[in-house]
Amino acid sequence: MRATLMYQAGDVRIVEVPDSRIEHPTDALVRITASCICGSDLHPYHQMTADKGPARMGHELIGVVEETGSEVTTLAKGDLVVSPFAISDNVCEFCRENLQTSCVHAHAAFWDGLEEGGQAEAVRVPLADGTLVKLPVAPDSALVPSLLTLADVFGTGYHAAKMAGVQPGQKVTVIGDGAVGLMAVLSAQRLGAEQIILMGRHQDRTDLGREFGATDVVADRGEEGIARVRELTGGHGTHAVLEAVGHMPAYEQAIGVVRPGGVISRVGVPQYEEAPVGFRSLFRHNIRLAGGPAPVRAYIEELMPDILDGTIEPGKVFDASTDLDGVPAGYRDMDERRSLKVLVRP
Amino acid sequence: MRATLMYQAGDVRIVEVPDSRIEHPTDALVRITASCICGSDLHPYHQMTADKGPARMGHELIGVVEETGSEVTTLAKGDLVVSPFAISDNVCEFCRENLQTSCVHAHAAFWDGLEEGGQAEAVRVPLADGTLVKLPVAPDSALVPSLLTLADVFGTGYHAAKMAGVQPGQKVTVIGDGAVGLMAVLSAQRLGAEQIILMGRHQDRTDLGREFGATDVVADRGEEGIARVRELTGGHGTHAVLEAVGHMPAYEQAIGVVRPGGVISRVGVPQYEEAPVGFRSLFRHNIRLAGGPAPVRAYIEELMPDILDGTIEPGKVFDASTDLDGVPAGYRDMDERRSLKVLVRP
Repeated sequence: MRATLMYQAGDVRIVEVPDSRIEHPTDALVRITASCICGSDLHPYHQMTADKGPARMGHELIGVVEETGSEVTTLAKGDLVVSPFAISDNVCEFCRENLQTSCVHAHAAFWDGLEEGGQAEAVRVPLADGTLVKLPVAPDSALVPSLLTLADVFGTGYHAAKMAGVQPGQKVTVIGDGAVGLMAVLSAQRLGAEQIILMGRHQDRTDLGREFGATDVVADRGEEGIARVRELTGGHGTHAVLEAVGHMPAYEQAIGVVRPGGVISRVGVPQYEEAPVGFRSLFRHNIRLAGGPAPVRAYIEELMPDILDGTIEPGKVFDASTDLDGVPAGYRDMDERRSLKVLVRP
Repeated sequence: MRATLMYQAGDVRIVEVPDSRIEHPTDALVRITASCICGSDLHPYHQMTADKGPARMGHELIGVVEETGSEVTTLAKGDLVVSPFAISDNVCEFCRENLQTSCVHAHAAFWDGLEEGGQAEAVRVPLADGTLVKLPVAPDSALVPSLLTLADVFGTGYHAAKMAGVQPGQKVTVIGDGAVGLMAVLSAQRLGAEQIILMGRHQDRTDLGREFGATDVVADRGEEGIARVRELTGGHGTHAVLEAVGHMPAYEQAIGVVRPGGVISRVGVPQYEEAPVGFRSLFRHNIRLAGGPAPVRAYIEELMPDILDGTIEPGKVFDASTDLDGVPAGYRDMDERRSLKVLVRP
């Protein structure tokens, strides 16, 4: 079968690999019908050294169950399923608390750490009963792009808003106009935020952000951007800041725009380890810090109905589509900001 | 009148100063009947340079109202009152949200930033209506030491537990066996924590901690201390970590013992600005960071009844008592860990 491999920064290829197959009785073999390229795939696309490669890519996928291991009880051949970016048993102590990204099962993992991946023809899914969720549509449904966002970006944006405890009537800043940032806007709107300020500088994206519920757009960065948000909020900043970038300037911007007593909720994977948290930055005004890898598995059942009935259309973040052969160009287009998010139909 | 001045690190003197007097119509003049030395007073006692001095000391006080400004409406001469360590109007946007330490009134301040202080014979209290709370006892009541803890240490320990969202049945680690740490133990117990692990190495203090509700005491620090807490909690650490020290090793210890999805709530004033918050430390397992200067004003009415009816006795943290002349020796005793907390009766 064919799969996407990254050999090092900037070097993505479609390669013939051994067919995926059941290895454990809790596995399922899934024939992939829709996958995509993630903003977080661009981190290795910028930084990966050759000794770390080649790595199988893709952690968002929808597909048809082709075979199940002997211990899989909730899935059958022919089911259309979506897989979160994290493998979990969904029954351990942490999964039961809706923290599936900290599942303690020995086979729990992120797709990005496995020898399988979603940008491929097929995939072995470990802990299939815990990980996969059945979709009540056909593989060629027009809802597939929106349902695919449940694998990562919508659940991740929603996690940012949930961990920030966004309440009706609150003011929220979203930092970053990538797919996760736009999903954070949609999520803040869903939770009843009154003012949603989107910080981003790509007008086609911020226009989509306005469609998802952003009330204000701030294109300025740094001190100018901070001053603009404070101006828009009567001087004090916003209760919640949803940080969907992961670079230090975004963190510093978050500190600049958060209201006393407010919360910075991070879902952009931090590209730094140390950051200001002392008296001047967080402590003086009781600013809280929250977030982490989103347990998107926890949110799928909650978010799916609004997609199925057409209330929301998160799939609008896909502005390009390709087959497997077009994946390397898809990385390039996303890296050069020509595409927001590329859908892959293997 | 006489007051405590710190000239520089290690140099505390009782000095004749001009009598305190009403300056603004919202002020009250209070004759101090009980005050104390705080663990946080030891930070300048270690670090203050001569150019920063002399500074008036003391931010916890009980006293009798002697005179009120023309706009003070809720207090009268003769009232016994307690003052939080932060001056606030108690009516602004942030005070109404119970974040009095971020009060936006022009006269809002911490006592430590004012030309007045609690370790003195009298004090001018700005924003008296907002700041002071009447006490329904006489100045010589045996309850005064416990009521004095409402000015800072009890409210601060309680803030740590509240900001951590301590719930019935949870496991909690308290880092630090100073007065605030012990009050955090009492607070976690009050909020229903099932297991309360106190990390501290002074047995007289940890014994008092056990009396306040600690179920386990860990005297080890660093990796040994972390391993011991994990052993006591089935391997995963505790839902909440209440950090009542403020030094980097305490922060690192907190990261070591917090459970995935858990929260580190800091009330020890950070003696650092940058700290680990990236993928390895906080992000990977959705660890949250909370805390800051406690809005103790918000907690006084809630915590006082249990003191008045004898349910709790937080005043047990005072293990020494002195008049003003004994204050310099009190600093020395606390610094050398001969006293836990020194009560001052001017």
